[in-house]
Amino acid sequence: MTTELFSKLESYYDEMISLRRYFHAHPELSFEEEETPKKIAAYHRELGLEVTERVGGRGVVSKLIGGKPGKTVALRADFDALPIQEETDLPFKSEVDGVMHACGHDAHTASLLVLAKVLTEMKEDLPGTIVFIHQHAEESPPGGAIDMINDGCLGGVDAIFGTHIWSEFPIGTIRYRKGAVMAATDRFDLEVIGKGGHGGLPHTTVDAIVTASQLVANLQQVISRKVDPLKPAVLTVGSFHSGKAFNAVSGKAEITGTVRTLDEETRDIVEHELEQMVKNTCAAAGADYRLDYQRGYPTLNNHEKETDLIVDVASEVIGEENISEMEPIMGGEDFARYLEHVPGTFFFTGAKNAELNANYPHHHPKFDIDEKSMLIAAKTMGSATLTFLNSK
Amino acid sequence: MTTELFSKLESYYDEMISLRRYFHAHPELSFEEEETPKKIAAYHRELGLEVTERVGGRGVVSKLIGGKPGKTVALRADFDALPIQEETDLPFKSEVDGVMHACGHDAHTASLLVLAKVLTEMKEDLPGTIVFIHQHAEESPPGGAIDMINDGCLGGVDAIFGTHIWSEFPIGTIRYRKGAVMAATDRFDLEVIGKGGHGGLPHTTVDAIVTASQLVANLQQVISRKVDPLKPAVLTVGSFHSGKAFNAVSGKAEITGTVRTLDEETRDIVEHELEQMVKNTCAAAGADYRLDYQRGYPTLNNHEKETDLIVDVASEVIGEENISEMEPIMGGEDFARYLEHVPGTFFFTGAKNAELNANYPHHHPKFDIDEKSMLIAAKTMGSATLTFLNSK
Amino acid sequence: MTTELFSKLESYYDEMISLRRYFHAHPELSFEEEETPKKIAAYHRELGLEVTERVGGRGVVSKLIGGKPGKTVALRADFDALPIQEETDLPFKSEVDGVMHACGHDAHTASLLVLAKVLTEMKEDLPGTIVFIHQHAEESPPGGAIDMINDGCLGGVDAIFGTHIWSEFPIGTIRYRKGAVMAATDRFDLEVIGKGGHGGLPHTTVDAIVTASQLVANLQQVISRKVDPLKPAVLTVGSFHSGKAFNAVSGKAEITGTVRTLDEETRDIVEHELEQMVKNTCAAAGADYRLDYQRGYPTLNNHEKETDLIVDVASEVIGEENISEMEPIMGGEDFARYLEHVPGTFFFTGAKNAELNANYPHHHPKFDIDEKSMLIAAKTMGSATLTFLNSK
Amino acid sequence: MTTELFSKLESYYDEMISLRRYFHAHPELSFEEEETPKKIAAYHRELGLEVTERVGGRGVVSKLIGGKPGKTVALRADFDALPIQEETDLPFKSEVDGVMHACGHDAHTASLLVLAKVLTEMKEDLPGTIVFIHQHAEESPPGGAIDMINDGCLGGVDAIFGTHIWSEFPIGTIRYRKGAVMAATDRFDLEVIGKGGHGGLPHTTVDAIVTASQLVANLQQVISRKVDPLKPAVLTVGSFHSGKAFNAVSGKAEITGTVRTLDEETRDIVEHELEQMVKNTCAAAGADYRLDYQRGYPTLNNHEKETDLIVDVASEVIGEENISEMEPIMGGEDFARYLEHVPGTFFFTGAKNAELNANYPHHHPKFDIDEKSMLIAAKTMGSATLTFLNSK
Repeated sequence: MTTELFSKLESYYDEMISLRRYFHAHPELSFEEEETPKKIAAYHRELGLEVTERVGGRGVVSKLIGGKPGKTVALRADFDALPIQEETDLPFKSEVDGVMHACGHDAHTASLLVLAKVLTEMKEDLPGTIVFIHQHAEESPPGGAIDMINDGCLGGVDAIFGTHIWSEFPIGTIRYRKGAVMAATDRFDLEVIGKGGHGGLPHTTVDAIVTASQLVANLQQVISRKVDPLKPAVLTVGSFHSGKAFNAVSGKAEITGTVRTLDEETRDIVEHELEQMVKNTCAAAGADYRLDYQRGYPTLNNHEKETDLIVDVASEVIGEENISEMEPIMGGEDFARYLEHVPGTFFFTGAKNAELNANYPHHHPKFDIDEKSMLIAAKTMGSATLTFLNSK
Repeated sequence: MTTELFSKLESYYDEMISLRRYFHAHPELSFEEEETPKKIAAYHRELGLEVTERVGGRGVVSKLIGGKPGKTVALRADFDALPIQEETDLPFKSEVDGVMHACGHDAHTASLLVLAKVLTEMKEDLPGTIVFIHQHAEESPPGGAIDMINDGCLGGVDAIFGTHIWSEFPIGTIRYRKGAVMAATDRFDLEVIGKGGHGGLPHTTVDAIVTASQLVANLQQVISRKVDPLKPAVLTVGSFHSGKAFNAVSGKAEITGTVRTLDEETRDIVEHELEQMVKNTCAAAGADYRLDYQRGYPTLNNHEKETDLIVDVASEVIGEENISEMEPIMGGEDFARYLEHVPGTFFFTGAKNAELNANYPHHHPKFDIDEKSMLIAAKTMGSATLTFLNSK
Repeated sequence: MTTELFSKLESYYDEMISLRRYFHAHPELSFEEEETPKKIAAYHRELGLEVTERVGGRGVVSKLIGGKPGKTVALRADFDALPIQEETDLPFKSEVDGVMHACGHDAHTASLLVLAKVLTEMKEDLPGTIVFIHQHAEESPPGGAIDMINDGCLGGVDAIFGTHIWSEFPIGTIRYRKGAVMAATDRFDLEVIGKGGHGGLPHTTVDAIVTASQLVANLQQVISRKVDPLKPAVLTVGSFHSGKAFNAVSGKAEITGTVRTLDEETRDIVEHELEQMVKNTCAAAGADYRLDYQRGYPTLNNHEKETDLIVDVASEVIGEENISEMEPIMGGEDFARYLEHVPGTFFFTGAKNAELNANYPHHHPKFDIDEKSMLIAAKTMGSATLTFLNSK
Repeated sequence: MTTELFSKLESYYDEMISLRRYFHAHPELSFEEEETPKKIAAYHRELGLEVTERVGGRGVVSKLIGGKPGKTVALRADFDALPIQEETDLPFKSEVDGVMHACGHDAHTASLLVLAKVLTEMKEDLPGTIVFIHQHAEESPPGGAIDMINDGCLGGVDAIFGTHIWSEFPIGTIRYRKGAVMAATDRFDLEVIGKGGHGGLPHTTVDAIVTASQLVANLQQVISRKVDPLKPAVLTVGSFHSGKAFNAVSGKAEITGTVRTLDEETRDIVEHELEQMVKNTCAAAGADYRLDYQRGYPTLNNHEKETDLIVDVASEVIGEENISEMEPIMGGEDFARYLEHVPGTFFFTGAKNAELNANYPHHHPKFDIDEKSMLIAAKTMGSATLTFLNSK
């Protein structure tokens, strides 16, 4: 069946490209997706599949029930875009000002749609059911996955697979990792509340800038001293804004930041230590504060068996020598949510090709991919599906 | 002559009030004064004095040549207003949106104009010359004084007197201090230039927020360790702005601040140590920087003999028991410039009166004064003038 | 009477020198003085005065009752030495290893003894009583003054005078200051209590060195931000000791330091802010602490009238041109205690003379004085005594 | 052959125990080993092996040439003890005051000696050569390995195996890891050189305590910002000593510390950033410094093939279920040096047994092991040797 799958996918490669380019030209922001899910639903309906729209808000779920009884496997692709002004010269450049598919979700969607078409054509011989999860709002916590799950998209699912087209790995490669592969990504918003006043009379004030600066300096100790050196963790203060005049003491400082970890224990430690530092550094200076710590996506933990399965099937697609274990990535991905409920794995499909200028990092205004990555992704996801359903 | 001076001033007190209220209702920002100097010049011209307009830009200087030969004394009043939205309920409230006489310069001007009128009436008996210096732009460094001086306003002047109507000292009091009474006020603008990047990949960045925060923390050492504890000095970071996103490392931090000192040696030390801290704290983190340190007004150093003279004449105005030495003020005042060229003194005329709601600090949107302070100021300045000119 | 006083003092100048040299050769540490008070008491007894020994522990008080009724004036000299190894080549160099009169108390004592002798000779004409307070333990808080006062040494005293022979002011000069002239000097002892451990496993420890270092850094804010810039204040961490091995996390840091202020309000602020910083910086890191803040001598506040009296009489001794107001000194002196009970003043008698190698700072192993300062001190103290007793 | 090996080892288990206890009772410090190497050499000579003493100083190397031609494998055990006062109640407790085998090197040595005896008995059937490397001074950088290697101990060696008896892993288990398993361990010694002075006159000093404290605080940024979060790294300041008096500014601070990393690139980064921070933080405060950074043992990188071999043979010894991958350990081990020259692996043999009080960490005064770990180690090392020599 794999041979048939691969040749069918190849024959629809042009459609995959044109779908991707259409989505690329018509990007929609997270939680604002309107046309994209409609187009996806229409495509699946055209295939004759059982389609549910507005799953968990804006998601689309469709089911392909095979000709034989069997297990259920889910395949997921996300479809939202980013608030970035595209700077490429592509003919299918974004037609929406300030919005861009700069993370490859257009490719994820196109690849999965065509894979659905091909698998539908092979329906009679399929043992079991395939659930296509087209997810909205991956880019913006709390993300679309959690709502789609709460809305039942994983009902009956035995395993799930997903991939990220990745412009920093070469085209023709696939990377995998068991266990933690993407970070838990939290956000904090902090107001240091001192007391403003005359720049020449510091003793009548509580200097929010000095206090917040000492806090930022002290926070370095959280990572350097409080966290197990074998456990990756990042605490970044991303913004610090305080004061309007050069000659007045500022009474308030506004700080935002992110915490990235790869395991829950370390996540708890960093959150706790951050709170301790904030609370006590402010108290040391006589300042007050307001801290809002919001947990974003959890760590994405790939399951062992499903990861092994991907490594196996990917060998047939691109050859064993092009598959390798990867280091974790300190970014987040809400595919992590599905893996909290069902076994599965999330792998990375290389899409870098300098000759095509497809060598910018994700979220870059000039981001692009080698489109052949879509075909590789579809073959690997499809082959994994067949292998999973055909296994005992 | 003093008796005559005082009674004449009292008889024109109503005019003084109405002039002050007119100026109050029609404030003009520093370096944007148009109508105020015209009105001042017209008043002096009406008195028959020799008037020069646009001195050093927007200043007005007029000369009263007495009936007898003698020395030359200068009296100075500033006339610019502040970019503050007035919040009083005064009937003569500012008619200009966002501009307010919140520092008493309206009163300085009115007081000096009426004093000029009275002294003109006493002209025949006056030995010597009186120069009325109406200065623009005291509130905004580099200030109007320096340009007026360069334009010759101190030519032939033997001594100069000035006062500040002061809402934090009670009405009916005068305060003086020999030597340093107001601070040298400098400004610095700093850019800490790191390298921005992904919030989860700090090692690929140079974190401007962490570097600038350590700098602010380290700068406290300049005051606590590098400056003689007997020499007052303030280093305030007034603003700190860096970063746009919670989840990215910011590559640039913008900082502004002020340095206040009461002697040139300490001023040099603070500037030097600030530069050392900036340069080396940035280097420690691998960051670059751009520092612009601008010296503002120098320390205002009152001369001994002229200060004694004010103490003497003020006793006659409000009684010895209402005159006292004051502590220095860590704000700046470009009257300091005149004292770098000629002897003189700058004293403070109390204007606080809670019953009149005249008890807000300077630069406050509800700032107001007890207008009797104008009369006290005029009497003291006038009496000092007569005493100085009549002295050997 | 002054003429007589001066010529008598001059005639005993040799004795003064030999007394000083004797004390210099036989120094005794604070609270360990045995022979010095005995010798002082013997001298006074020899003069026929009423002597009380072991006042407040080791002090000696003697009374000279004048031939006429009158007020009572006290003159104070301290007599303890320092734990310093003398490094001079003086023929009368310390004979006690590690102990040295490196602060001039030998001279204070000799000067006052000879003055007592001279005043005793002039007894008949004296209106009132003179109390000679020879104080132990000035160098070591809580000092001898407090115990002597509690033991009654100021009973009936109307005013007190004291001087410090000072190697940093030139011989032939006297310096005075009204109000605060020497600092309140406090001491703190701090233990930062973390949790030690393996140098490669910081997350299992609470790092006392990092915590204490952040504390020292944060403490700079106390001076730079919490104290009125016009109020001198110093917070010095004098010692920091932590850790035995390069490759282990240290669990405890021991810190000592001093706080110097010139007024009680600032003293309170610094103590309070220090405590806040210690408590909260430790809490921020999860460390515990033990802080012992001990108030040492209070600010030495000279009284106005008695200071004026010294300025007057000193003019007769060394000429008006050699008398000047001084800046406060950030060191402490328990003469401050007497001035909390009776009016008086503490002035400085210059003793610097580079030609005699008398130009090292106090407490230096090569400290020495120009001995003529003793004569100047005795004349000034004596003249002040006569003037005070003879005044209404 | 394995069966024979195991049963022979079991039959000599008593000898192994008595050898270990002898060494335990007679510990010798690193670089001071005298009797231990003599005893080892004598044992090997007794077996009839070719023994070289004083290899690289104090090491002992003996060769067992098998009856058949083949490859050469080295087995290494270290034999030095620690400067720790033993606090156990063992009958064979250290007889040397302040010196103790608190890291299991006694067991390493006993285990390897008996293994040599058994392999010697099996000599005829052995294809190839076995080199027994008894190494001195593992505990004290630069360690004994480097000198033994320079002295030729690895000549002709094709692979090397070593193990650490480990009191923190349960008896009956073996742990392995491919790649980096123990840290590069560096040391730094730093003097911050300021300028001491009077505690009340900070502006006349360069405060070494404040500067060094800011440095320690700033150094946290090296780990939190400069190092890839996926690359473990530790920078611990282990000691900080400065100042003798509470009331003086200290002019010098002495700091020591350690840096632990698991790869050379990160090691380079931390060393470089440490130097930058030291240099520039001192410069910021006007202080000088002297920094001595000494690289200790490199990262111990296990080779893949030899690690797989250990996993295989260990399964026969204790069962597959008792073998697991371990996390890296942030301590150092100079077995790392051998692996820079020849392939090999270093594994951990569990020795924890709470019932025997063998559950204290290494370097603890009550450290002890379950002695059965020696038998497990000998079996695994012996089996690895046979397998390696018998492989192609």
